[in-house]
Amino acid sequence: MTRTIVASATREIVIGFDQPFCVIGERINPTGRKKLAAEMSAGNFETVIKDAIAQAAAGATMLDVNAGVTAVDPNATEPALLVQTLEIVQQTVDLPLSIDSSVSAAIEAALKVAKGRPLVNSVTGEEEKLEAILPLVKKYNVPVVAISNDETGISMDPDVRFAVAKKIVERCADFGIPAHDVVVDPLVMPIGALGDAGRQVFALLRRLREELKVNTTCGLSNISFGLPHRHGINAGFIPMVIGAGMTSAIMNPVRPQEMEAVRAANVLNGTDRDCMTWIKTYKDFKPGEHAAPPPVAVVTPGAEGAAAGGGRRRGGREARMARG
Amino acid sequence: MTRTIVASATREIVIGFDQPFCVIGERINPTGRKKLAAEMSAGNFETVIKDAIAQAAAGATMLDVNAGVTAVDPNATEPALLVQTLEIVQQTVDLPLSIDSSVSAAIEAALKVAKGRPLVNSVTGEEEKLEAILPLVKKYNVPVVAISNDETGISMDPDVRFAVAKKIVERCADFGIPAHDVVVDPLVMPIGALGDAGRQVFALLRRLREELKVNTTCGLSNISFGLPHRHGINAGFIPMVIGAGMTSAIMNPVRPQEMEAVRAANVLNGTDRDCMTWIKTYKDFKPGEHAAPPPVAVVTPGAEGAAAGGGRRRGGREARMARG
Repeated sequence: MTRTIVASATREIVIGFDQPFCVIGERINPTGRKKLAAEMSAGNFETVIKDAIAQAAAGATMLDVNAGVTAVDPNATEPALLVQTLEIVQQTVDLPLSIDSSVSAAIEAALKVAKGRPLVNSVTGEEEKLEAILPLVKKYNVPVVAISNDETGISMDPDVRFAVAKKIVERCADFGIPAHDVVVDPLVMPIGALGDAGRQVFALLRRLREELKVNTTCGLSNISFGLPHRHGINAGFIPMVIGAGMTSAIMNPVRPQEMEAVRAANVLNGTDRDCMTWIKTYKDFKPGEHAAPPPVAVVTPGAEGAAAGGGRRRGGREARMARG
Repeated sequence: MTRTIVASATREIVIGFDQPFCVIGERINPTGRKKLAAEMSAGNFETVIKDAIAQAAAGATMLDVNAGVTAVDPNATEPALLVQTLEIVQQTVDLPLSIDSSVSAAIEAALKVAKGRPLVNSVTGEEEKLEAILPLVKKYNVPVVAISNDETGISMDPDVRFAVAKKIVERCADFGIPAHDVVVDPLVMPIGALGDAGRQVFALLRRLREELKVNTTCGLSNISFGLPHRHGINAGFIPMVIGAGMTSAIMNPVRPQEMEAVRAANVLNGTDRDCMTWIKTYKDFKPGEHAAPPPVAVVTPGAEGAAAGGGRRRGGREARMARG
């Protein structure tokens, strides 16, 4: 059984086929959030702290941390800012973290100060990336997200995306990184633009699980890009990818409808033992309420079942795909 | 490609792997609805008419019609009452119907007056049932729901349930009924009682599709029996069964959250071409609204995208399972 272990200072989480779906909170990311980028650049981490607490309270399993505030010479500024952001998040919540950067030096700087066992987000099939990131992943003995694109971009052919994923897993093996420490992102296309995007991903997830035996993730909200009522599409997509074998996603946990879909799919997939999380979360739910437990003010990091309200959309993974 | 054709007087619907999910409205059923049973026994069909219109307006693909008002000598009363109910529903909406009875004489009486091509609901693997129902199904050239239990009851072993389904499909073939006219119900157990109920059904659905190449259905809300916030579990279950290959379900269409899950899964499964139904239904949806289009007073039968409010729970399929 494939098990990817991530950890904070004191909390260990297993990503795996027989585990509750791993929700990687996407909010701490200035991509597409100008106000947050300006705050972080100015050394103001109030929103970062607020987002960390809110995502933990909403039931995130781990948190993604991105400090890409500028596209202009990120090598000069991102390492120090990512370290600072990561340390603040580590002081705020006790959840495993995902170190999210396209700057290798920033990833290494963050790995040096990260507690526990963080996830590196990400490597692609590009040679330059493989050569820069995989030695770090090996050196610090951490898992890594492998995105299925390479120098030629993102293929519309799912067989090519599978081949790229396979190549990355093989290159990881060359570096001494086991397949259970590679979390493949098969890349999710917007269904509004590509009617076959859903079935492509479901088929890819099965192959990744059965042939490569790896855990998987995705930037979940890409699927609904451009459509009305995106939360409804996202909430339908979550049970389908979980049913197809996906084991984690980078998503917004401060969204009641999506988190309800995660909890329901965990029940149905047999990973919410005795339906305990479901019953705890919804035992007082009244028909006709919005599909969410009531917002809470005081939070326990990572406590499932308490959802914070609000939360804006962000463009992190989407923006990355648009750039890709 | 497996295609099960059902029809009303003027409307033909295809149930199939490449078709939008077929929602069989379950509301016209006095099982567990004492008031409705009393009304129907007294020749009052106001609720039947209201339920027919509301389900059509909410987007039902076809309607189940059950007139089992009594467990005491149903042979004496059910044929005439089912015929009367069916004729009233036929006059009210132009949707294909499912003739739902455990009384063979009632099914035959209804088949004589049904317009188009109704679905017979149901036969089981019990010899007595097979001998009584299959000749009718052949004679009237209609499709039939095949429930995977037999004289020994409902097996908890999914392999046994598959074997029962296979036996029914083979017996149908002996009677000259093709597999594409057999819609198998693999039987859904409550997940609260049996933690493996979801994965059992997903695996069964794949086998039924790949090995027997049949369409499938189920009494959908059984899955959430006994749990709080059942609509949330049902709404998670729908995309998972659709992803696993289920092509129809007997369910309550007058439930916004469940119907939203059906519409989202159709988009993601590639059967809502260009997302047209989704966009039409949700183009004016405002974030924060309950997950439903607004209720409408005036309805067009079968018009997707207009949901009627209200609707109580019922115990039809559940009650049947409890008896089984």
